[in-house]
Amino acid sequence: MNDTTAPPEALDDGRLAELAQQLRVDAVRAADAAGSGHPTSSMSAAEIAAVLFGRHLRYDFDQPDHPGNDHLILSKGHASPLLYAAYKAAGAISDEELLTFRKLGSRLEGHPTPRLPWVDVATGSLGQGLPIGVGVALSAKRLEHLPYRTWVLCGDSELAEGSVWEAFEHAGLEGLDNLTAILDINRLGQRGPTRHGWDLDAYARRIQAFGWNTVQIDGHDIDAVDEALATARTTRGAPTAIIARTRKGRGVAAVEDREGMHGKPLPDAKKAIRELGGIRDLRIHVRRPPDADPYPKDGGDRSARLPTYPAGGDEVATRSAFGEALAALGTMHDDVVVLDGEVGDSTKAELFSKEHPERYVECYIAEQQLIGTAVGLGVRGWRPYACTFAAFLTRAHDFLRMAAISRSDINVVGSHSGVSIGEDGPSQMALEDLAMMRAIHGSTVLYPCDANQTARLLPALADRPGVGYLRTTRGTTPVIYSPDEEFPVGGSKVLRSDPADQVTLIAAGITVHQALEAADRLAEDGVKARVIDLYSVKPVDTQTLREAAAETGRFVTVEDHHPEGGLADAVLESFGNGHPMPLLTRLAVHSMPGSATPEQQLEAAGIDASAITAAARTLIDR
Amino acid sequence: MNDTTAPPEALDDGRLAELAQQLRVDAVRAADAAGSGHPTSSMSAAEIAAVLFGRHLRYDFDQPDHPGNDHLILSKGHASPLLYAAYKAAGAISDEELLTFRKLGSRLEGHPTPRLPWVDVATGSLGQGLPIGVGVALSAKRLEHLPYRTWVLCGDSELAEGSVWEAFEHAGLEGLDNLTAILDINRLGQRGPTRHGWDLDAYARRIQAFGWNTVQIDGHDIDAVDEALATARTTRGAPTAIIARTRKGRGVAAVEDREGMHGKPLPDAKKAIRELGGIRDLRIHVRRPPDADPYPKDGGDRSARLPTYPAGGDEVATRSAFGEALAALGTMHDDVVVLDGEVGDSTKAELFSKEHPERYVECYIAEQQLIGTAVGLGVRGWRPYACTFAAFLTRAHDFLRMAAISRSDINVVGSHSGVSIGEDGPSQMALEDLAMMRAIHGSTVLYPCDANQTARLLPALADRPGVGYLRTTRGTTPVIYSPDEEFPVGGSKVLRSDPADQVTLIAAGITVHQALEAADRLAEDGVKARVIDLYSVKPVDTQTLREAAAETGRFVTVEDHHPEGGLADAVLESFGNGHPMPLLTRLAVHSMPGSATPEQQLEAAGIDASAITAAARTLIDR
Repeated sequence: MNDTTAPPEALDDGRLAELAQQLRVDAVRAADAAGSGHPTSSMSAAEIAAVLFGRHLRYDFDQPDHPGNDHLILSKGHASPLLYAAYKAAGAISDEELLTFRKLGSRLEGHPTPRLPWVDVATGSLGQGLPIGVGVALSAKRLEHLPYRTWVLCGDSELAEGSVWEAFEHAGLEGLDNLTAILDINRLGQRGPTRHGWDLDAYARRIQAFGWNTVQIDGHDIDAVDEALATARTTRGAPTAIIARTRKGRGVAAVEDREGMHGKPLPDAKKAIRELGGIRDLRIHVRRPPDADPYPKDGGDRSARLPTYPAGGDEVATRSAFGEALAALGTMHDDVVVLDGEVGDSTKAELFSKEHPERYVECYIAEQQLIGTAVGLGVRGWRPYACTFAAFLTRAHDFLRMAAISRSDINVVGSHSGVSIGEDGPSQMALEDLAMMRAIHGSTVLYPCDANQTARLLPALADRPGVGYLRTTRGTTPVIYSPDEEFPVGGSKVLRSDPADQVTLIAAGITVHQALEAADRLAEDGVKARVIDLYSVKPVDTQTLREAAAETGRFVTVEDHHPEGGLADAVLESFGNGHPMPLLTRLAVHSMPGSATPEQQLEAAGIDASAITAAARTLIDR
Repeated sequence: MNDTTAPPEALDDGRLAELAQQLRVDAVRAADAAGSGHPTSSMSAAEIAAVLFGRHLRYDFDQPDHPGNDHLILSKGHASPLLYAAYKAAGAISDEELLTFRKLGSRLEGHPTPRLPWVDVATGSLGQGLPIGVGVALSAKRLEHLPYRTWVLCGDSELAEGSVWEAFEHAGLEGLDNLTAILDINRLGQRGPTRHGWDLDAYARRIQAFGWNTVQIDGHDIDAVDEALATARTTRGAPTAIIARTRKGRGVAAVEDREGMHGKPLPDAKKAIRELGGIRDLRIHVRRPPDADPYPKDGGDRSARLPTYPAGGDEVATRSAFGEALAALGTMHDDVVVLDGEVGDSTKAELFSKEHPERYVECYIAEQQLIGTAVGLGVRGWRPYACTFAAFLTRAHDFLRMAAISRSDINVVGSHSGVSIGEDGPSQMALEDLAMMRAIHGSTVLYPCDANQTARLLPALADRPGVGYLRTTRGTTPVIYSPDEEFPVGGSKVLRSDPADQVTLIAAGITVHQALEAADRLAEDGVKARVIDLYSVKPVDTQTLREAAAETGRFVTVEDHHPEGGLADAVLESFGNGHPMPLLTRLAVHSMPGSATPEQQLEAAGIDASAITAAARTLIDR
C-alpha cells in the first residue's frame, strides 16, 4: 500500500474549524433554498467532513474514474447537504449549483445518487453504505491490489439495521484495513433518541466483537478527528470504526441537540448563518490520489467456449447449465466475479469457484451483504453475478431496489424457483421473485427452460445495463434447443405454430415442457395450439405476442409463480396503449403448497400439462 | 414468574441419552422414508432436544392454545425431522405419521409450518426464528405478564443473517430473560465450514456485546445441556444464549462431521440405525404448563368512534387519518398493538403511542425485526400493525413472504408511497410495494385516497385473515367521501358514471384526484369518462370492472407505482378465464425520478390529470 502522497496544501486546525463552519452554513443555505432537507444531520458531521476532505481523502474531482481515487460513501444519505457543501469547498460544484438542491432537474437530489460523478452509489435507504463499502474495499484488497481507501460515513440510527452487522462481520473476517466506518453518533434519530444515545461504549463493544478496531472521539474536536482518521489509515489487519460523539444541529442553539428538528430546514436560516459566523468561501485542495494503474479487466481467454448440450440428449437442470456456463464465462472474461450466499453447491455457482477461486466471494447466509458486495464490486468495474435461492433474494429486495437507483450493473441469479422444487416445501420456493424483479426499475428478467438456452442467456445478461436476473430450476429438464440457437434478450421462441392455431400456450422455464406436452395432447384431439417460450420475461417480445393474439385470439399463460406480477402480467404489458387484447386464462400457483414430489406439486398447483390442456379446451369452447 | 411445576416423571441422564439416540434414529428413518431431508442437521441437536423436551419445556400437547405453554421455535427449520421425532416421543404424533414426512398431504412438511398445531410459525428461511421469538417473549414480558418461556433453536450458518443481530439487539435491550436462544454450532453449513467453525468464543463475544448472557457447552453432554437450560431459566434481567459445540451427523461415522452430507438421507440408513443402537420407543412426559389465565384481549371501549372528516373540508393526508384512526382503533380494541420502525412521526403511528404507550413497540430502523416482532405478537393473539415507509418494507420482504406461510394475521402499513412524496427523491419512494404485497399469498392490499376512506379501511384490514397492507400518501388530499360511506374490502367506488361513458379512468390513492380532474377536463370537451376508485387493490372488484369494460370498452389505469405488478395488473386479473378484455392504456412511473415538488413529480411521471386526459383522448380516437 502506498500512502505517502503529501497533501498539496496543509490546512491548519484553525482553517479546518472555519471550513467546518462553512459546511454547516452551506448545508443550512441549501436546505433553506430548497425548503426541505436535513441540515441538522449534516451539522453534526461537519468537522468530520472538513478534516476528511481537508487532510485525508485522496480524490481527483476532475477524474472521478481515476483508479487510485479513494471512495467516500455517505451511508447517512439524508445528510446530502453536507456532502454537497464539501463538493463546493473542493471546487467540484459552484455555489449556484449548491442552491439548486432538491429542485427539479438538479443533480443535487434529496439523497445522493450517481447523477453526480463523484457519487458511487445512491444512498438514502439506511444501512446500505457499509455493506456496499465492503465490496469496494474488498476489490482493492483481494482483486485489484490498489492502495485506494474506502470511507463510509454512517449515522447512528442505521446501526439498528441488521445489514450493517452483516457488513461488520464480512469486513472483520476479511481484515479490510483499507475500510473505515465513521459513525456520527449524534444521539437523535428521526423521531427521538436512538437506542444507545451517546453510549459510545455500547457501539464499541459490539463492533470490536466483530473484529474491528475502534476509536472513540469527540466528533467536534478537529485534532481528535484528524488523529482518528490517521489511525484508521495506518492500522493494519483490521478495519477501523471511528465512533464520534456529536451533537445534531451543532452550532445553532435553536436546533442543537433538540428533538423534533430532524429533516427540516432551520426555523430562522439567516439568524443561524450569523450564529455560525456568516458565509465563507474557503477552498480545499483535496489530496491527489496516488498513481495507480487500473487493474486489467479486459483480458480473458476469448477462445473459450460456453458449454453446449446435445438436443434430445440427457435431461439437464438449468441450474447445472448455469454453473457450467458461469465457469466458462469466467474464463472468457476476467472481469466476471461471482458471489455466493452459502448455497453454491445448490445454485451450482461453486463450479465457478473451482476454476476461478480468486474471483469467487463467499458471502455466507447474508443476502443483503451478498447484493451489497456485488454493488460495491460493480462500482469498481467488475461484472458481478450474485447467486442464491431465488426465494431468499427477497431478503435483499431493498438492496436491489437501491441498486437500480445507483444505476448499478449487477447480475442476480436465483435458483430453486417455483413449486417444482418438490419436497422442501414453500419456505424454499420462489413464487414472487418474478414480481419482485420485474418491478425493479430498468431490470432484465430471463427465465430459461433448457440447458443451451441457459448457457446462451448468461452472457447476454452481462451485456445489459442495470439489474439483471436469471431464474433457474432445480430439477432436470429436457434439452430442446440445439447448441447454436440464438436467444436475444427481448425475444421469444415459437415452438409450435400453424396458421390454423386456435390458442396460444405461453410458458417459460419449467412450464415450457408442460406446455409442449399439452400441445401434443390437444393435437391428438385435433386442436392446434401455438406454443411460445417466453424466456425473456422483461423486456417481453411484444411483436410475437401481438401476432399470436391476432392469429389465435386466445392465450393460456402458465407459470410456476404466484398469479400476481409474473408471466401473465408480463404478457399483458404487450397490449397497452389500446392494443386489442386476447382472451386469456392464467394458470399460476394460487394455493399454498406443502411437501410433495415435483410432479405432484405441478399437478396440485394446476400448472401441469393436464391443467393446460383443460384450460385451453375450456377457452376454445367459450 | 412461576417456574415451580415439577416434571411428572424425571428422566435420568441415561434415559435422556437413550432418548437422544431415539431422536437420531427417528430422524434418520423419517428422511430415509421420504428420500430427502436433513437428518445430519437433526442429529447434531439430539441431546439438546432430548433434554429440552425431557426436563425443561412446559407444554400441553393436547392444548396447544394453553396460555401457559412455552413456545419452541425451530429456527433451523431444515432440522424438522428432529422436531417431528420429539413430537413422536412426546406422544403428539404416531410413528406412522412420522414416516409420512415430506409426502403429499402430510402435515410433516420439509420445513415446519403451522399445519401442525404445535408449530407457531413456519421456518426454513433462516434467521427468522429468533426475531419472531423476540415478539413472542415480548408479549409475555411486556403485555401479558405470563410465565411462559420462549425457546429458539438456531443453526450456526444462520447467525450470518443480519436479522439475527437485529433480534439480539432488540431482546438484549428489552431484557427478555424469558427468551433462550440455543445455538447448535455444528461447524458445517450447507456447502462447507461456517465462518467461525467451532470458535464458540467468537459467537459469545458478539452475543455478549449485545447484552445477552451466554453459556458455552458441549452440546452432546446431557449434564451440560441440562445445566445450561436450567441457567437460562433462572437467569434474570437478560436473555441467555446457549452456545453448544456439536457435531453434524453425530453418532454415525459415515456422516459425522463430514462435508457433503448436508440435506440428504443417510447413505445406509439400516446400518446407521444399528450404529445408533436400533429403534426405540421411549416416551417423554413433557412438563405441564403452569396455570395461567389468558390475558383478556377482547376488551376495549366499543363506544369509541373512528375519526371522521367533513367532505369538502380541509385537505387531509391519508397518513394522518391513518394515525388518528389507529389511535381510535386502539381504544376500541385492546388487542391492537402497533410497531414502529423509528419513523412514527412520519407514518403518524405515533398518534397511537400517545394514547396507548403500553401497546406501542419501537423497533427502531430494523424492518426485519419490525415484521418479526409483529408475527411473534400475532402468535400470542394480538392484532399487530407494523408501520414504516412503504419503500423500506422491501427490507422485510422475506419476512412477509414467510408470514404468509405461517398463516400469520398481521397488518402492515406503508407511508410515503410513490413519486408524490416530492423532493426526497427515489430512495424514499415506494414504487414496487404494490407488486410486492400483491404477490404475498393470501394478502389484502388497500390503498385509500381520502381521510374517511382511510379511517374505515383500517379496521376492515384487521378483520381479514393473512397479511394485510394499507398504503398511505405523504401529502394532503381532498376529503371526497362522506364520513358514513362504507368501503367493503373487495369493493370499489364509481365516482363518475353515465350510460354514455366512452372510457373508464381507474385510479387509487393520490391518482384518484388526478383522475377526477381529468374527467372534468374531458367533460368540457364533451367526452364522458367513468371514474373508478379502486381502493381495494387485492381482492379487486371484478364485477364493477367487468361492467365498466362492457359499457365503456376502454380503460385508462393510472398509478403512482412502477408499471409492473401494480394497479393495472390488478385490474387485468378481473379478465382471466377468457373474459373479454377492454382496450387499456396504463399510466405509471416508467422513468427514474429525481427530486422535485409533488406536482412536478406527478407531471414528470405522466400520471397527472393532463396525462390522463391525453391518454383517454388518444384511446378514444384509436
